[in-house]
Amino acid sequence: MKITKYYDRFTVPMPKVDGIEYQASKQKPPYGPRVNGVMVAQPDGPGFQIDGHMIRWANWNFHLGFDIRAGPIISLASIYDLEKDTFRRVLYRGFVSEMFIPYMDPTEEWYYKTFFDIGESGFGLCAVPLEPMTDCPANAVFMDGYLAGQNGKPFKISNVFCIFEKMLGMSCGDTLKLGLLGKREVRPEVSLIVRMVSTVANYDYIVDWEFKQSGSIKVGVGLTGVLEVKAAPYTHTDQIKEDPYATLLADYTLGPYHDHFLTYHLDLDVDGDENSFVKDKLVTKRVTDHSSLRKSYWTVARETAKTESDAKTKLGIEPSELLVINPNKKTKIGNHVGYRLIPGSLASPLLTDDDYPQIRAEFTKYHVWVTPYNKSEKWAGGEYVDRSRGDDTLAIWSARNRDIENKDIVLWYTLGFHHVPYQEDFPIMPTLSGGFELRPANFFDSNPVLKTRIPKVAHWPNCTST
Amino acid sequence: MKITKYYDRFTVPMPKVDGIEYQASKQKPPYGPRVNGVMVAQPDGPGFQIDGHMIRWANWNFHLGFDIRAGPIISLASIYDLEKDTFRRVLYRGFVSEMFIPYMDPTEEWYYKTFFDIGESGFGLCAVPLEPMTDCPANAVFMDGYLAGQNGKPFKISNVFCIFEKMLGMSCGDTLKLGLLGKREVRPEVSLIVRMVSTVANYDYIVDWEFKQSGSIKVGVGLTGVLEVKAAPYTHTDQIKEDPYATLLADYTLGPYHDHFLTYHLDLDVDGDENSFVKDKLVTKRVTDHSSLRKSYWTVARETAKTESDAKTKLGIEPSELLVINPNKKTKIGNHVGYRLIPGSLASPLLTDDDYPQIRAEFTKYHVWVTPYNKSEKWAGGEYVDRSRGDDTLAIWSARNRDIENKDIVLWYTLGFHHVPYQEDFPIMPTLSGGFELRPANFFDSNPVLKTRIPKVAHWPNCTST
Repeated sequence: MKITKYYDRFTVPMPKVDGIEYQASKQKPPYGPRVNGVMVAQPDGPGFQIDGHMIRWANWNFHLGFDIRAGPIISLASIYDLEKDTFRRVLYRGFVSEMFIPYMDPTEEWYYKTFFDIGESGFGLCAVPLEPMTDCPANAVFMDGYLAGQNGKPFKISNVFCIFEKMLGMSCGDTLKLGLLGKREVRPEVSLIVRMVSTVANYDYIVDWEFKQSGSIKVGVGLTGVLEVKAAPYTHTDQIKEDPYATLLADYTLGPYHDHFLTYHLDLDVDGDENSFVKDKLVTKRVTDHSSLRKSYWTVARETAKTESDAKTKLGIEPSELLVINPNKKTKIGNHVGYRLIPGSLASPLLTDDDYPQIRAEFTKYHVWVTPYNKSEKWAGGEYVDRSRGDDTLAIWSARNRDIENKDIVLWYTLGFHHVPYQEDFPIMPTLSGGFELRPANFFDSNPVLKTRIPKVAHWPNCTST
Repeated sequence: MKITKYYDRFTVPMPKVDGIEYQASKQKPPYGPRVNGVMVAQPDGPGFQIDGHMIRWANWNFHLGFDIRAGPIISLASIYDLEKDTFRRVLYRGFVSEMFIPYMDPTEEWYYKTFFDIGESGFGLCAVPLEPMTDCPANAVFMDGYLAGQNGKPFKISNVFCIFEKMLGMSCGDTLKLGLLGKREVRPEVSLIVRMVSTVANYDYIVDWEFKQSGSIKVGVGLTGVLEVKAAPYTHTDQIKEDPYATLLADYTLGPYHDHFLTYHLDLDVDGDENSFVKDKLVTKRVTDHSSLRKSYWTVARETAKTESDAKTKLGIEPSELLVINPNKKTKIGNHVGYRLIPGSLASPLLTDDDYPQIRAEFTKYHVWVTPYNKSEKWAGGEYVDRSRGDDTLAIWSARNRDIENKDIVLWYTLGFHHVPYQEDFPIMPTLSGGFELRPANFFDSNPVLKTRIPKVAHWPNCTST
């Protein structure tokens, strides 16, 4: 698309809208869609330390690895507990294990477009060097990545990761307040973000791992880039007589319907290796004995998954809290220590079970699976995904229905998006974001953030502010 | 809780964890959970203009009002379209209309705790003055709010809103890239946020309206503050013999289970008053005629809601895209102009339909309702909520099953959280976030962000950076 004119600060006229209630502001130009830059800086330097691939920040300590398939691999993540005066294990290893992007056009030229971006292309292999000030804020620190090239020699991807601290913002703002008795204490939260961007053919994925002092780990994914489009003889929707399996985006240009599924491998080690997966189901209870003026309430019914089939879960049907707990460790007052999965961006596959791509991607059929740790079970779509027949997937391994209670277990979570393209997605789509959160659940005896000191207010050095 | 020791930079020891794979870093202290501040500044000043209550920023133009019940009311929001050289209507009026917070303890002292925070307490009335640098970043501009007091005289809440531009971050990072042919163009996104914090008794709600140059409006809500707790004779879970309807949080302290529902009134006026609500259902199709090597795909089946009962929707069951379109306006290539609701934070009530609080909160039973505009239908729980009997709610109005096709319509969206408290939520809970997005869907002919100029890189004035 050739851009011949721009929104600009001095060219935007007064609002002209056609309803009496939409009055134009009395404000005169200059005014317009060019915005002023926002500067982010950290005068005292970053609050984290990098030693090789170990990163230490606030109460967190973790290893950041770079993998040709997965991109970032977070491992050995442990969190310091002030009360116990020790680091406690949280996440042995976490990474995106497979993706599945089936297109919904069954015609000769398109039916096969059912991509597995991790196993076929490689998130790490397709990572792009990050640009300071645009991909990452000014206070970011960058890290290079090294891979084996096709000739067997190592090659470098410069600035493959950026690591930075972020302050405030709704999505990461843990604002704590003591609102009682007129006393208030507000704490801006600073969290640590590890970012990578991978450009797999047309699509761009922004992969974020965010660590919080509260003990939460938030995983974010943003989809942007160039839509996969298809040529067509249409310049207007009126000309379309049969299902185009797509949205008409522009003259002669269709954007076929498709899905994005991302399956995460989350080897939680909550306070040690031996963990259990529990569903705390929220169950409605009727009050029938007139003991209350209420007729109903809900309560929690805990179910511990004994085998893999107990753990397979389609979300959105029964309300429940999903936790990985350590059945051998309790808080002082007797709750099992645990971490909770707060799901986000749910989507379920709509292909039929017998369809070839869905057989290969059977691991997307449940949002959650839990398997016993097995060092060969890392890639949900199989070790060799290209031309796979679906006989080496998470679904096949899990069909053995192994014991998972009080074992070293792996939680697999699949997030997804059904993507009906819109004209705004063309030629380059604005980022669509999703993610999930791993949040401590009776892991600490109380909110650990209360015992952190408030971040120092930052002042720009050697400078009298204007 | 008396805090006698803090996490601090110089007191945190080396990691001591008990597994061979969790090796301590070789990094020596100093290091610890005190983080360095991150400074945000905007040397060229804010990129928005405030004229009374009209706010103009980038391609957006909207009115920000302050209401005793709803808090912020966004109205008359229109967006400038470069191609059409005019402002186009998007949102006539948007606000949180009602909340419902039922506790799940049926005992004598607690059964009645089923709060309607908007109608009974008032989000605006409970708003708190925002603190610079903590509630809002350094580049924020503050606005006071005025209400009628109980003696009929006006009173002021200082700094009730803050308005600021935010750069980057996963949740608002529209990073655009041209990844083909080695050419890359990355655009950091700056978005505009309007924030209010309301402290309704024990709970704190952070309410954000975020405007993006892409045309999206994101609504965020963060829950924090002090849990409502209940005294109990327990110091350990082993002592609990009957369902406490709660989590034991600390000695003698229970945190009862409860829900939070927030119902938004979203009077979209997409390119004019007369709109329709459509569900684009994603429907699996089987290929049975061997015309393809695929056995299935999904496609879009559009259903236009003719009456209110067609529009009532429980989400999470059938995959669908929910849109408000203008059936009288099309893009050049023939798609109906529209805005899409991207839901988030779904929860459905678990109380029985005949339970008194649920009768009063019947509006939470569907995630989405659509009504014809009626100036008396603003408050989903009714005009007079305190002691209401549920005879003046959104559910009652909508039972008339009025025509809503090609009318001035209102979209009502309810987001929710089931809240099982955990020890980390005590005594003050780290923010739990949710929200939803209104995103243009064939509203523009192509991605409008591409025609915006890149924000200027900001430099601190009169300062040589160190």
